[in-house]
Amino acid sequence: MAYRLYYWPSIQGRGEFVRLVLEDAGAEYVDVARGPEGAKAIIAKLRGAPLAPFAPPILEDGEQMLFQTAVICSYLAEKHGLVRPEQKHHALALAMTIADLAAEAHDTHHPVSTGLYYQDQKPEALKRAKAFREERMPKFLGYFERQITSEGILGDFSYVDLSLFQTMMGLEYAFPNAFARVTEKTPKLLELRDRVRARPRIAAYLASQRRIAFNEDGLFRRYPELDE
Amino acid sequence: MAYRLYYWPSIQGRGEFVRLVLEDAGAEYVDVARGPEGAKAIIAKLRGAPLAPFAPPILEDGEQMLFQTAVICSYLAEKHGLVRPEQKHHALALAMTIADLAAEAHDTHHPVSTGLYYQDQKPEALKRAKAFREERMPKFLGYFERQITSEGILGDFSYVDLSLFQTMMGLEYAFPNAFARVTEKTPKLLELRDRVRARPRIAAYLASQRRIAFNEDGLFRRYPELDE
Repeated sequence: MAYRLYYWPSIQGRGEFVRLVLEDAGAEYVDVARGPEGAKAIIAKLRGAPLAPFAPPILEDGEQMLFQTAVICSYLAEKHGLVRPEQKHHALALAMTIADLAAEAHDTHHPVSTGLYYQDQKPEALKRAKAFREERMPKFLGYFERQITSEGILGDFSYVDLSLFQTMMGLEYAFPNAFARVTEKTPKLLELRDRVRARPRIAAYLASQRRIAFNEDGLFRRYPELDE
Repeated sequence: MAYRLYYWPSIQGRGEFVRLVLEDAGAEYVDVARGPEGAKAIIAKLRGAPLAPFAPPILEDGEQMLFQTAVICSYLAEKHGLVRPEQKHHALALAMTIADLAAEAHDTHHPVSTGLYYQDQKPEALKRAKAFREERMPKFLGYFERQITSEGILGDFSYVDLSLFQTMMGLEYAFPNAFARVTEKTPKLLELRDRVRARPRIAAYLASQRRIAFNEDGLFRRYPELDE
């Protein structure tokens, strides 16, 4: 039975980390909110209680319902051989650290409140983005660079590499100048990104209509003033 | 062999979520950085590479090294019967959602940069704290309230209840006024907190020297101007 993914239909966002695992695994899935039901299908899931998810992405595997991006990715990876069983805890911790980095990238354009528009929190965004570019992005990417010893961050290829790829793509989209500066010191991460991009199923996915373009409603947004 | 926990020795912080699981399980553990080695023991762990943790808390179980709070708590809970195996994914997603709430509580006093003092980001903190008190705290606590059907948030008692307890304690410490207002609508969460506090091992721990008091270096800080 096909997996059912519930995520906002017009952005990559956190759902993209899940889509990449599904695509690399060659798994059959329905991207529910991109079908006729639209985003209403997500709202209905969030309203169920108890055992309701807090937020999308949400994945259904038959009767099993999962939420939280890293939990879903880890679950899929275990089922589809995209992580070694003995590395699952370490992989999950890395996936959560990548999620923390993505959340910090988000907060550069929403440092005060997700309930306000970017334009209404721009002075704060300028300050937070500066700290992100100069302190946090180098800290996170430097850490990941030090972990890479061979093909992937865990030795063999794993789902964590897919999440790292997506984050590199997002950071380059949102902060092209800062990304170029910071990644001068992270050659292994750039190589890893290129290896992931060249994986046949990933390359096919990226070239397909299923890949939504980055845009200014998602997690990674390009506001030139935040990338001085 | 005793577990070895590495966390900053003068704050509850994220380490407290791990300590509570260890204490409730009656597990033997060494809180390494509170011993003669001090915080240097943590720094040494972070420097190891590859397979280094990104940040504390870090737990060692023999040869196994774990990081990311929710991963550690989940691992310990599976070993000590503090989560039903068939609920482990849902429990982990809830634990990660609690970690997200704790991170947002942290960002009320550090909305611009963890590299700056609170005093240097106070105007931004006032704005972010308002959004947290009025939008985010009600949203998160309302969600958890709807999930509680019986003794714990997953039916039976689980480690997620320990993490919820800690978060309730922290929010009440940091935002006593907002906490009182928001929890008028969450009676089941207050009952859950009281049930956890009365568990014999937790009660003994809270009364011991091992429990560090909340303070203004931790995750949850009481700055009265952030709780208008």
